[in-house]
Amino acid sequence: MEVSPILLVPDFNAHILNSVEIETYLDEQRARVDAALKARMPAEDTRPDVIHKAMCYSVFNGGKRLRPILCLAAAEAAGAAGDAALMPGLAIELLHTYTLVHDDLPCMDDDDLRRGQPTSHVVFGQANAVLAGDALQTLAFEWAAEQPAPGPYAPGAFVTELAQAAGSQGVVGGQVEDLAAEGTRPSAETLYYIHKHKTALLFRAATRMGAIAAGAGEKALAELDEYGLNIGLAFQIADDVLNATSTAAVIGKPAGSDAEREKLTCVAVHGLDRSREMAAQFVQTATQVLKAGDCAAEPLLNLADYIIQRTH
Amino acid sequence: MEVSPILLVPDFNAHILNSVEIETYLDEQRARVDAALKARMPAEDTRPDVIHKAMCYSVFNGGKRLRPILCLAAAEAAGAAGDAALMPGLAIELLHTYTLVHDDLPCMDDDDLRRGQPTSHVVFGQANAVLAGDALQTLAFEWAAEQPAPGPYAPGAFVTELAQAAGSQGVVGGQVEDLAAEGTRPSAETLYYIHKHKTALLFRAATRMGAIAAGAGEKALAELDEYGLNIGLAFQIADDVLNATSTAAVIGKPAGSDAEREKLTCVAVHGLDRSREMAAQFVQTATQVLKAGDCAAEPLLNLADYIIQRTH
Repeated sequence: MEVSPILLVPDFNAHILNSVEIETYLDEQRARVDAALKARMPAEDTRPDVIHKAMCYSVFNGGKRLRPILCLAAAEAAGAAGDAALMPGLAIELLHTYTLVHDDLPCMDDDDLRRGQPTSHVVFGQANAVLAGDALQTLAFEWAAEQPAPGPYAPGAFVTELAQAAGSQGVVGGQVEDLAAEGTRPSAETLYYIHKHKTALLFRAATRMGAIAAGAGEKALAELDEYGLNIGLAFQIADDVLNATSTAAVIGKPAGSDAEREKLTCVAVHGLDRSREMAAQFVQTATQVLKAGDCAAEPLLNLADYIIQRTH
Repeated sequence: MEVSPILLVPDFNAHILNSVEIETYLDEQRARVDAALKARMPAEDTRPDVIHKAMCYSVFNGGKRLRPILCLAAAEAAGAAGDAALMPGLAIELLHTYTLVHDDLPCMDDDDLRRGQPTSHVVFGQANAVLAGDALQTLAFEWAAEQPAPGPYAPGAFVTELAQAAGSQGVVGGQVEDLAAEGTRPSAETLYYIHKHKTALLFRAATRMGAIAAGAGEKALAELDEYGLNIGLAFQIADDVLNATSTAAVIGKPAGSDAEREKLTCVAVHGLDRSREMAAQFVQTATQVLKAGDCAAEPLLNLADYIIQRTH
């Protein structure tokens, strides 16, 4: 698919790949992640088969695999070779998948479509969707614990990082405030809380876990932490912009649904033009942190650009 | 509260404490677990406060703390001193609490009362109940990873044990088959699958994690594994018997609700008398395994009896 930039990328991004090169890189990394997921997910006919079918349905639903790709790229930037960050990356993807399954439930965002396909509760019923989400979270932590973190980190560092990003003061906290903010007066402070917690902390966990897998020092960890957080903030703003401007055929769910539900989005708070500027600024911050430090590897710089160029 | 045995305990249980002694032991251990939970749960006014209120509401809802008490007692039986098994035990209790919050949801068992109190979704709404359960599961794994397991176990063994007991081939799998079995023809095979997965595997994880915390050898681990599994099976049968024979005032939720919903219970499959015999047999197996081995500590033997004597 051709990439039609929805945001003007500032010209300081001289490293930018053309759209074909970025898509090739992403396709390769996505295939790497998909192959690893296929090899490790329980078979669909494992008893009870309905839960394993539901888990696989949501895991293999055309996800972009951005978080594991970021985890792998961060590990590479911090000097790791091979698959050191693969299991932590897969764990993050499962965690992310569980949050989507639960977010789509009728009592939450009540979405019937995700990536153009019927959502889990539409296909398997609400009870099985809740339980499939629960089991995906459990499996995420099982995978995060499979490989102890290298020194100087605590052996359980992957589990701790994932849990802190995912829990009541992470993704769950963001979703709570997101639901509570529907129909309320737009607030920049609440918007930032939601974007940071619902989205950016898991991106940050991805780059931090990559750094940890590489046994990165304090400085590299801090750089990749700041990069991940800023990329995550840019990603969520781009998502808000896409929902407001794109079509259902492109984003795989009803366009304009945020506005219809009076969701607290960046577009609602800051308007479309300012939202685009803000996303570009977060990307600029992310790439500048890397360029000023030790982890300015090309994949991370290119991924930063892709975040705000993506059309789906 | 006076303990009125609902099951005749076979006379081979010569070690049995009288009811006052058992209650005193349980009260002391429960206070120990409660104090540790109070010290470690996030404060209710942590942002977003509704999710932290919901989490604390379900954690401090009068639970018996049987699983952490079993974890601590197993560790003691395997030679651990002090609080080696406290964090793993607390993690199991949080995991158990999350499953109760989700089981009570309208799309699952649709229970409005738990331990005599309105359930989480009644008090906080369905979305917050789903999210509170999610966050309790996350916190369970954060706590399970806090302390690496001692050699010869892998550092992440507490997380692995908890995840395998909790996931799609553990508690979640049991709940899936439990829901699917409602209104179907009673089957002893399906009943055993449900009881083992929905309940007994988490009891087994409790005693296994206690053993691991103590650095137990293979033989002691195997004994405590078999003890935990059998105690868990007995516990679930006693639960089925209580639901069929007790009153709402005693069990804190409508009595006879299983039969009304055509739940697949031991009473439905095997009848009341045979259910009582089966529970006593599982307890006998559990205690005999310990008495023939190295872990026949009094607390575990007494806990086995309590499992089928309890009235709530």
